[in-house]
Amino acid sequence: MNAKQVWNDLKTVRESSPLVHNITNYVVMNNTANALLAIGASPVMAHAGNEVIDMIKIASSLVINIGTLSDKWIDAMELAIRAANKKGIPIVIDPVGAGATPYRSESCLRLLSKANPTIIRANASEIMALENAAIKTKGVDSTASSDSAMDAAKSLAKKYKCIVTISGKTDHLTDGDKVISIEGGSDMMPKVTGLGCTATAITGAFAAVVEDKLQAAASAMAVMGIAAEMAEEKAEGPGTLQLYLLDAFYNMSKEDVEKYLK
Amino acid sequence: MNAKQVWNDLKTVRESSPLVHNITNYVVMNNTANALLAIGASPVMAHAGNEVIDMIKIASSLVINIGTLSDKWIDAMELAIRAANKKGIPIVIDPVGAGATPYRSESCLRLLSKANPTIIRANASEIMALENAAIKTKGVDSTASSDSAMDAAKSLAKKYKCIVTISGKTDHLTDGDKVISIEGGSDMMPKVTGLGCTATAITGAFAAVVEDKLQAAASAMAVMGIAAEMAEEKAEGPGTLQLYLLDAFYNMSKEDVEKYLK
Amino acid sequence: MNAKQVWNDLKTVRESSPLVHNITNYVVMNNTANALLAIGASPVMAHAGNEVIDMIKIASSLVINIGTLSDKWIDAMELAIRAANKKGIPIVIDPVGAGATPYRSESCLRLLSKANPTIIRANASEIMALENAAIKTKGVDSTASSDSAMDAAKSLAKKYKCIVTISGKTDHLTDGDKVISIEGGSDMMPKVTGLGCTATAITGAFAAVVEDKLQAAASAMAVMGIAAEMAEEKAEGPGTLQLYLLDAFYNMSKEDVEKYLK
Repeated sequence: MNAKQVWNDLKTVRESSPLVHNITNYVVMNNTANALLAIGASPVMAHAGNEVIDMIKIASSLVINIGTLSDKWIDAMELAIRAANKKGIPIVIDPVGAGATPYRSESCLRLLSKANPTIIRANASEIMALENAAIKTKGVDSTASSDSAMDAAKSLAKKYKCIVTISGKTDHLTDGDKVISIEGGSDMMPKVTGLGCTATAITGAFAAVVEDKLQAAASAMAVMGIAAEMAEEKAEGPGTLQLYLLDAFYNMSKEDVEKYLK
Repeated sequence: MNAKQVWNDLKTVRESSPLVHNITNYVVMNNTANALLAIGASPVMAHAGNEVIDMIKIASSLVINIGTLSDKWIDAMELAIRAANKKGIPIVIDPVGAGATPYRSESCLRLLSKANPTIIRANASEIMALENAAIKTKGVDSTASSDSAMDAAKSLAKKYKCIVTISGKTDHLTDGDKVISIEGGSDMMPKVTGLGCTATAITGAFAAVVEDKLQAAASAMAVMGIAAEMAEEKAEGPGTLQLYLLDAFYNMSKEDVEKYLK
Repeated sequence: MNAKQVWNDLKTVRESSPLVHNITNYVVMNNTANALLAIGASPVMAHAGNEVIDMIKIASSLVINIGTLSDKWIDAMELAIRAANKKGIPIVIDPVGAGATPYRSESCLRLLSKANPTIIRANASEIMALENAAIKTKGVDSTASSDSAMDAAKSLAKKYKCIVTISGKTDHLTDGDKVISIEGGSDMMPKVTGLGCTATAITGAFAAVVEDKLQAAASAMAVMGIAAEMAEEKAEGPGTLQLYLLDAFYNMSKEDVEKYLK
């Protein structure tokens, strides 16, 4: 990763303050909105079928997160996705818990089949579940299943012509061919709920303003990792970590990017 | 503003601990409840059509916030509003995002037409959108549109016979004739999601126990600004600001009111 | 209370990391998830009728909290309860606001009648309201009403063959005969929204892995009180208290348990 590029992308987010339309889960709505504000973007949360199409008209990107999904919300996500595709703004999808229940996997596939997604961000097991489900629904036996999340990510990236971000101790991003890996973050991150959802939302902000979408996704994950390291230096546990993370998004300077980017 | 009056009103809230019934948005529910508790009020969140009328029976004021509106919630808001009007308790309305989509503007007008609102609290653009929508729906061309949010606020205050609070860097409140302006707060406030919603909820607490509703609204905004200044002295960013804000609501003394009130 | 037992139970939670399925209220979802993560458990929030039965298949306990109830959510809770009973995993119920409206009381009774609950955790007035409602619905006049929450708790414990936890300044737990009382906690706890809900969720984590359910409930409340005392030493108000509480769950050592347990 190139610190100068990450810093430039962050500056662009701050200067453009893109409106990111989130249809996300109840657990993380507050954190997501705060993370987007702290990074310099403008969040909007709206899920009513009556207004998502109008909201897309003023949005610069759409973030879809199925964490606490239900039929009505999936319907609204589909409406928003269609409107976003029509308008040509980036769509970032977070398939929270894909594989945990058939309903989650099927809802993901339903959304992805309409989405022309720009970026899918998930953890390794969700990516593998998604790829597995995609194979199964084609009637193809999954004996040829992926050896690893990276294989699954590449396959998904090719299938949906999108970027796939696998977040974890090391983040891996791919457009199906090229792979970018990013070190960083804090070991306490898995002890704070919804930091994956925060990464997805931040990705939505960068995707809104950075032309090269693989670069957008990579800069977002880099900023996430840098902020987590900055926060970890002050935090005494996962409770304080999440607050210092927001402070770090807000305060992150060029020097911080250079210092913490690996 | 008169520090003695603000302090007296705050003391009244703490001593009476009014039950404030909130039908609000998913993003801020937690913060709203915490702010009301910290200030000394008792929050209740309930939105089911099956119980809002019963909940109003034990409530001292009603706070309606359309942030993440949908048809079912608007229906429940309408039921609660009718019950609150019948009981004669104050109703505070926060028209979040009015003007952003037609659904928001129409829902606001629908609620306001039933509400006999006591106080409307919003930012400048929401107030102007609301006023504009109110004019349009009467079939009156809006070429005679307001020159500023203050004109729109006065017009709304007269139309609905209520107080209108415009929050911003400087807060302006009006009953249609008289105007109160309040300085204070922190520049980081717009970087924390839902502080406007917090102001609305706090306004609901003061409206429940302070007879003069313009004074109630003004004391609420003064306390909001004082708490933000107290919080800003400790905060290192928007993440920590929101926590210290709750601490400040809880700890605010007569001396703090005198020191920070402008 | 025995510090060694509490520490052993906490270690078991951390080592087993049980998946706790929560169907809870909008206000506390984030805090509940964070508390479960900080204590070492794995939270999942899912409420769609389409998936709760599947989610129970991978869960080690079920936590039901009616804080922001509505018909659809109560339906899903009932589905999850049936599945949890069939699978034989513990069910912890938090009857938030029982007694405040008839809808709440009736929904509680409806759920309890299906639940074979393992543990009910509530405050004194909710326990009394629940007991009162249970008596009334049997057509028995409540002139023989309980003299205290403890009597009501014992009666409920016998009626539903479960543990009842009454949380308050002192926590009291009973299986209908035996009573355990636990001192501790912070006076600021009632000024933070949803700490009762956190206690319920933590109880769900302990119930998932500790065989003796009265002991599980007692260890959970002990850990809650210890964490609150640890947090109170650093907190300057209810805002910071809730963050330090999460840090304390995460950092709590054997020495902390020995030092703070009364």
